[in-house]
Amino acid sequence: QTPAQPTRLGLCAACHGSTGHASMPGVPNLAGQQLDYLRDALKQYRDGRRNVPIMRAAIGPVSDAELDALARWYSAQSPQLQAHP
Amino acid sequence: QTPAQPTRLGLCAACHGSTGHASMPGVPNLAGQQLDYLRDALKQYRDGRRNVPIMRAAIGPVSDAELDALARWYSAQSPQLQAHP
Repeated sequence: QTPAQPTRLGLCAACHGSTGHASMPGVPNLAGQQLDYLRDALKQYRDGRRNVPIMRAAIGPVSDAELDALARWYSAQSPQLQAHP
Repeated sequence: QTPAQPTRLGLCAACHGSTGHASMPGVPNLAGQQLDYLRDALKQYRDGRRNVPIMRAAIGPVSDAELDALARWYSAQSPQLQAHP
């Protein structure tokens, strides 16, 4: 069961893609990632334990409920084999 | 082309699996992850910028060449859809 598309998805999709397949160098894929790992990572970016300014800026204003919806969305996406240059 | 199995793979596989499919809560999947992201994350765990004691202990003694081999290995694995409980 795929969750409903989160209202804040566009914020993440610019770099991670709407289905969690990264489109930029240095950006991780999120599709199919473990839910608890994604949720913890987002909280760490939000409070600065993972000190990545663009992630802090993006996720800083996001509520716990929105954060949870984003983690669930990406965890529920199907991972796909990437092309490796 | 799948890289040769890294000599240090067992160190990682205990939690991340030999093909990068996590077997423990809180542990991320690594299969098919972006290579540059994996390499950077490993360096951040090694030097403490990502402050996760078990990762620092595991990757602390690993050389740059070994670290690179591990990142390449996991990035080259095929991601698989996970069961979501």
